[in-house]
Amino acid sequence: MRSGHFVMADEGWPGCAKSLKGVILDMCGVLYDSGEGDGVAIPGSIEAVRRLKESDLQLRFCTNETQATREKFVAKLQRLGFDISASEVFPPAPAAIAVLKDRSLRPHLLVHDGLLPEFDGVDKTNPNCVIIGDAAEYFSYQNLNEAFRVLIGLEKPVLFSLGQGKYYKETDGLKLDVGVYMKALEYACDLKAEVIGKPSPTFFQSVLNDMGLQSHEALMIGDDLLNDVGGAQHCGMKGVQVRTGKYRSYVRLSDGTHSLRTRREVET
Amino acid sequence: MRSGHFVMADEGWPGCAKSLKGVILDMCGVLYDSGEGDGVAIPGSIEAVRRLKESDLQLRFCTNETQATREKFVAKLQRLGFDISASEVFPPAPAAIAVLKDRSLRPHLLVHDGLLPEFDGVDKTNPNCVIIGDAAEYFSYQNLNEAFRVLIGLEKPVLFSLGQGKYYKETDGLKLDVGVYMKALEYACDLKAEVIGKPSPTFFQSVLNDMGLQSHEALMIGDDLLNDVGGAQHCGMKGVQVRTGKYRSYVRLSDGTHSLRTRREVET
Repeated sequence: MRSGHFVMADEGWPGCAKSLKGVILDMCGVLYDSGEGDGVAIPGSIEAVRRLKESDLQLRFCTNETQATREKFVAKLQRLGFDISASEVFPPAPAAIAVLKDRSLRPHLLVHDGLLPEFDGVDKTNPNCVIIGDAAEYFSYQNLNEAFRVLIGLEKPVLFSLGQGKYYKETDGLKLDVGVYMKALEYACDLKAEVIGKPSPTFFQSVLNDMGLQSHEALMIGDDLLNDVGGAQHCGMKGVQVRTGKYRSYVRLSDGTHSLRTRREVET
Repeated sequence: MRSGHFVMADEGWPGCAKSLKGVILDMCGVLYDSGEGDGVAIPGSIEAVRRLKESDLQLRFCTNETQATREKFVAKLQRLGFDISASEVFPPAPAAIAVLKDRSLRPHLLVHDGLLPEFDGVDKTNPNCVIIGDAAEYFSYQNLNEAFRVLIGLEKPVLFSLGQGKYYKETDGLKLDVGVYMKALEYACDLKAEVIGKPSPTFFQSVLNDMGLQSHEALMIGDDLLNDVGGAQHCGMKGVQVRTGKYRSYVRLSDGTHSLRTRREVET
């Protein structure tokens, strides 16, 4: 795939093509770049989704998006021109609610206002765990302090992080993601967060279960080398990184630092 | 020393008493609790400073305070009743300015507004490093993003953290400290910050140099087991932890979690 575009290869699929029965697509940075309003579709991606749907392959969408409910998020993608329905999309919040129910936990939420309606039916009184999502501007000092105080006050502090991404690309530049604040609270409270979302194997497995496929029959396509490609490979899936979204190619210099490769260097 | 008080022992000093020639005191959580206005002096601490000054021991104050200039910070302590002058107080910002000069670095600052005047004479154009301090409410999502973008845009990103504390106690509760945001940026940019302030050995050494003492001749007193006591011991000094400020005593339970000890358990 060429830089900056999502191009379907008519020929020359990877070697896994014969056993391939399903494709899982990351969304932000692969299908669209988020930003003001609905963001913008990445050239070629609407057509790519359409052609995948016309193929014999099963298709699911796996995202760590936590700034909106699944319904509002899918509606945005539909406005951008994508043929996507809510039942095909797997974000972390519904998975988190299942975990809360299973373990009888009541969360303190540090999430984006747009995600709150997902937790409408969840008991949040006298919280015994903390959930953080990509809260963006809601990651104020005061809000992070409140989450910290809940955790430090618990006998057995439990922190769930909806993803562990470092940053993502919006139309006006790179933005810090939830993983950064996960690390902050881990350090403050001397604990290890439980990640719900990519690259959690449990999360990928729930998508495979929905398709009724074995891991070797599925291909994950994303712009995040660790959370999309690495996470998928860790589960036995194939993983492909696109050169859109947050993609940056680095070369490690002899002094141990990194330097951004030029596009010429990357493509040759 | 008894819980909640700074009590001078008339007899029974630690075994290092014979060689002891100087004492270094942490300030927040040892001399006073910060909070609204000037905060409040911890009972016994004003008297303790007075008696140390009357003794044959040299006395210095070593703090990771970065919410105000040294002058304003010392004026606050004086208003609380402490006999302290600016030349006796060692905070991280002047040390940071010396490092910038030495290495020809121009900082992007993510610090508390009250600290900015310390950096008035420093060239901040076209920054090639980032300095973070205890910015408190200035640790907004937007400000952390700006610092992140400066770092990620540098060929050799350099992050200085004025201390690495996890949290501190104000009169209305625990507050997150700069170390938490240091960890956040370390994770986001895949780098290791350089800490200026406690527990950096360079920082402690500058205080010893000012007293003209060897490390084994000095005693550090603080409420932070890692940054005060551990840092001092790492330099060859003696370290004593007070049971004021952020002091909490934990007992590790058999299942690996922690529980706050009752005062009775601690004192027996």
